[in-house]
Amino acid sequence: MHKYGLHGKLTATAGNGEKLASILLEAAERVSTAKGCRLYMVSKDHSNPDAVWITEAWDSKEAHDNSLQAAGVRELIAQAMPLLDGRPEKGPELEILGGAGIG
Amino acid sequence: MHKYGLHGKLTATAGNGEKLASILLEAAERVSTAKGCRLYMVSKDHSNPDAVWITEAWDSKEAHDNSLQAAGVRELIAQAMPLLDGRPEKGPELEILGGAGIG
Repeated sequence: MHKYGLHGKLTATAGNGEKLASILLEAAERVSTAKGCRLYMVSKDHSNPDAVWITEAWDSKEAHDNSLQAAGVRELIAQAMPLLDGRPEKGPELEILGGAGIG
Repeated sequence: MHKYGLHGKLTATAGNGEKLASILLEAAERVSTAKGCRLYMVSKDHSNPDAVWITEAWDSKEAHDNSLQAAGVRELIAQAMPLLDGRPEKGPELEILGGAGIG
């Protein structure tokens, strides 16, 4: 069965990229044990020190949506929100056909 | 050490999205044994049936660049090129800080 993927960008207010990244790395640890989580990858790009990218793979959209409701994750979202410069750029919802390295 | 990531979009000419995706899934199989390959994920998005997304994680940029020279991979690139509608949208080079599900 195909998996559900997301690749989105969060931009922090000037100088807060590192802080935002560290919150998201903590989120990655918490969701790593969530049901259906296959990938939760936190990245930066050199062109913008305040941008953080999140790449996710889940068994289903439902598994992803459920993870947002977990207590620890909600707290981290609440910590991250005031650091953001505008809304997250969510990117298209992906239907993961397959490939290498996906558990 | 941080890993090297890419998330890019290939758009096929009208009606060739499935064919392009199957070539890229074959590429995923071949690069899965390449030195330093951690992730090579092939996805579609529902908003465009001719678009295919590739998400990659490598131990280094060098490992990624070397994989493009492998014989089987070059052949697949040659098969994919005539199917493309314009140049691939490469997206920014990502510095993967960490997360869950990356081998």
